[in-house]
Amino acid sequence: MPDHTKAEASVDVKEGADAEPYFSMGADTLKIPLAMHRDHRQKLAEAMLAKKLAPEGTVIFFRGGDLRSVYDSDTDWDFKQESYFQYLFGVKEPGCLATIQLDSSAPYMHKSTLYIPRFDEIYATWMGPIKPKSWFQSKYLVDEVQYADEIDLSDAKATMEIDGINRDSGIPHSEVNKGLINLPHKLDGSALWDVLNELRSVKDEQEIKIMEYACQVSSSAHLSTMRACYKDQDNEHRMEYNAVANFRYEGAMRGCERVGYGCIGCSGTSNASLHYGHPAEPNDKSVHKSDLRLLDMGAEYHCYTADVTCTFPTSGKFTELQKEAYESVLAAVHAVEGILRPGLDYREMHRKATRVIAEELTKRLGLFTAPIDAVCSEALVSRYLMPHGLGHMLGLDCHDVGGYEPGHFKDKDDVSLTGLRLGRVIKEGFVLTVEPGCYFNPYLIDKWCSHPIHSKMVNEAVLRSLIPVGGIRIEDDVLITRDGCRVLNDIPRSVEDIEAYMQGRIDWIPGKGKVPVA
Amino acid sequence: MPDHTKAEASVDVKEGADAEPYFSMGADTLKIPLAMHRDHRQKLAEAMLAKKLAPEGTVIFFRGGDLRSVYDSDTDWDFKQESYFQYLFGVKEPGCLATIQLDSSAPYMHKSTLYIPRFDEIYATWMGPIKPKSWFQSKYLVDEVQYADEIDLSDAKATMEIDGINRDSGIPHSEVNKGLINLPHKLDGSALWDVLNELRSVKDEQEIKIMEYACQVSSSAHLSTMRACYKDQDNEHRMEYNAVANFRYEGAMRGCERVGYGCIGCSGTSNASLHYGHPAEPNDKSVHKSDLRLLDMGAEYHCYTADVTCTFPTSGKFTELQKEAYESVLAAVHAVEGILRPGLDYREMHRKATRVIAEELTKRLGLFTAPIDAVCSEALVSRYLMPHGLGHMLGLDCHDVGGYEPGHFKDKDDVSLTGLRLGRVIKEGFVLTVEPGCYFNPYLIDKWCSHPIHSKMVNEAVLRSLIPVGGIRIEDDVLITRDGCRVLNDIPRSVEDIEAYMQGRIDWIPGKGKVPVA
Repeated sequence: MPDHTKAEASVDVKEGADAEPYFSMGADTLKIPLAMHRDHRQKLAEAMLAKKLAPEGTVIFFRGGDLRSVYDSDTDWDFKQESYFQYLFGVKEPGCLATIQLDSSAPYMHKSTLYIPRFDEIYATWMGPIKPKSWFQSKYLVDEVQYADEIDLSDAKATMEIDGINRDSGIPHSEVNKGLINLPHKLDGSALWDVLNELRSVKDEQEIKIMEYACQVSSSAHLSTMRACYKDQDNEHRMEYNAVANFRYEGAMRGCERVGYGCIGCSGTSNASLHYGHPAEPNDKSVHKSDLRLLDMGAEYHCYTADVTCTFPTSGKFTELQKEAYESVLAAVHAVEGILRPGLDYREMHRKATRVIAEELTKRLGLFTAPIDAVCSEALVSRYLMPHGLGHMLGLDCHDVGGYEPGHFKDKDDVSLTGLRLGRVIKEGFVLTVEPGCYFNPYLIDKWCSHPIHSKMVNEAVLRSLIPVGGIRIEDDVLITRDGCRVLNDIPRSVEDIEAYMQGRIDWIPGKGKVPVA
Repeated sequence: MPDHTKAEASVDVKEGADAEPYFSMGADTLKIPLAMHRDHRQKLAEAMLAKKLAPEGTVIFFRGGDLRSVYDSDTDWDFKQESYFQYLFGVKEPGCLATIQLDSSAPYMHKSTLYIPRFDEIYATWMGPIKPKSWFQSKYLVDEVQYADEIDLSDAKATMEIDGINRDSGIPHSEVNKGLINLPHKLDGSALWDVLNELRSVKDEQEIKIMEYACQVSSSAHLSTMRACYKDQDNEHRMEYNAVANFRYEGAMRGCERVGYGCIGCSGTSNASLHYGHPAEPNDKSVHKSDLRLLDMGAEYHCYTADVTCTFPTSGKFTELQKEAYESVLAAVHAVEGILRPGLDYREMHRKATRVIAEELTKRLGLFTAPIDAVCSEALVSRYLMPHGLGHMLGLDCHDVGGYEPGHFKDKDDVSLTGLRLGRVIKEGFVLTVEPGCYFNPYLIDKWCSHPIHSKMVNEAVLRSLIPVGGIRIEDDVLITRDGCRVLNDIPRSVEDIEAYMQGRIDWIPGKGKVPVA
């Protein structure tokens, strides 16, 4: 249609044929070469061919995310690209499909085709200029672009699509792809799933830069939020969600409009609900000056997310009890980050963290009355105080893939590993969270104190005195390096630094740390 | 289970049995008595019985919204309650079902049952205290509460559920309810759909207060954003999404974390894309000082949304061309709002607005070379300059239900009513938008100038000179009163007031309007 041609001609392709196409949200944000995604496709093709998991010529089919209506209305839910699709193609437009055909003789060991939605001319009025196929081809560095309604894989000698069940949600990936198109001569896709999860687990140089950016933006936003809470400490009308609004503003101003998971903006006793901040508990409690805040929020960029938790006193000054509990958790952070390196089993790190917490709470507050070995063998910390895992993989998903090696699963019977989403020997290039915590949840405390054996191993008076503290979590995003690890976020963590920063006695710049007040 | 009992006992029911239960996001936000929703149920029951649309005893089934996973991951998309469910029950918790049994002898002419999700004890650790049935009963003023897994309507002599196709999305409501439970002796639900849409169209006293609140918060947020844009006019790195971040922050600080539709945060030439600000065009253009901003953003409270558009110059000073175009659109606002009252047909208002725009652009800039009657009979404004409707119903959905009377539909063949979502005689209690606009979209301009007849009715040089202006929209949210109308938002609209406010020569307080600088 002539009208279509006109619309196509008006496209402003920001990156010419010579320039390196990139993703960016503007001048002050990170530029990401989109060639990164072609590298990911090459890695996948290499692995599939080298391990003989699929024959030459196999066409692997991927479905990108699409817009979904809010019930029967004409508005859409928030959009994020599907994570495997993002990893391999980095396409921000909804409604795309793609194929990778394995070909060891091709430049990148594969031939890629992107299938884009075909828009009616009304798109040019309502949504913006209709971008031609050539725009998508040069932007996303694929070999070919077709319209999604033209897709025809009937000539393929072998096809494949991802087949696996997400370990954290229990949702089969096939539900994402459900009944979309007919794939002839379809091969089993479970090995593809394993290969992709292992590839996504080890971040490459560009991905590390993205994670650094998401963590830096998140650090700045947390820092700003700490000061905002302090400044407003005497406002009796202050609500938990005000801190969330502050964080999201700071992130959005730097191109991170989305967060990788629902913001957890607790205060005081709500700190004890691990995933507070959902629709039934929308961070809507008013904040008291004496409350500890527990803020678990992470900015997302190019679909990669940070996941950072800060715990600090609204008043800028810890009480004695808050301080002892906080420093018990911080000791666990130091114990783990001090030794974290490739080759260690994260299950051991989890057990180490819970032991340190038990030791510290006993040394400082006399919490446990039984010997620490007995406390640990009964897994009391995992049962009652830290009923979640020490950490998880982090990347395109908040609870990212790769937490267990292919074919391995959570040991549900081992209470000492309660909720642990990362149970394997760790490798260089992993990005994972270290997030020990300690919560004083009345429900779990009642359960504990009514247990015939466990109730005798704790000083109940001390335990109940901790209920108003609510809970503490300290969460870092950590890159595993060749011989150790590097924390990607940068926020005051010691009691002294938190108090000094909040009260304005020092400043803090992510990447530089503590600096004198300007 | 004993564990469950304990969790239930720990629930803090904020509102006691004597107190009036309400929804609120805190001290500085609006308190909404939840009895409003019982009134809505009563109105529905009365209408169904009075019009004999269902026999006594009929059980009407409703499905509330539920959380949906982001693909196969364990995070959820943003949540909003389903609109019919919200209207009738006002329940913020996901995963509920409900029934209304028609009963003319009952206190509110019906008996209501809410079906809530049954949570495992792990909920008390991760999500918060498990609220007992009694909490839901006293909070939401229903006659009975059961667990959703207990629902059994097999004894019902007649059942019904909503059946209709959303006029704006084209999505059948049955897709929302798809295959959930077996409804015995099911009656046709299309009359129910019509009755509910008509009820939702006429806002009651409480709903008007909510709409006023959403509009007031949106006005304050727009005002703050106008100043922020002005203050930052010389920043070459300023991106369109920075204004969106500012608006969302101001809304979120007052309990409106959600917006009712994707924020449209255009600048300059992107103003010409009516629904800019979607995933493929995420408000990511850098803003030039000379750009007109077109910001279409509305805060949502208790699921009711505002929908307000401001157009203003980044620099705080309109150019001559921007001013003439802006005042042409403003004249259409005044022409419509000056006469809007019950009994008028909104289709006539739409035609009036397009005529005024044609007249003004010709008087001020000499745009049309043909007589205005000919311009109107060829619908040139609707075809090329304002390719959307003058306004739409507003409420729980942005494009709210009730835009056409039951059994009536858009006249797709009448080009002069292009895109009009509200085509009926209006009534007292309607809340609707008045949003004339004028856009200089290169795609449409090319189409216009190559049309054998229409091209001869316009001064092409003048038309093309307007392309850099991009586009203008002025959108008010208007309550239809007994003998006129009342604009619920309050923002400077004249060129003089916009410039004076942006430059800090006057202040503006929603509800009070223009005030001297403090």
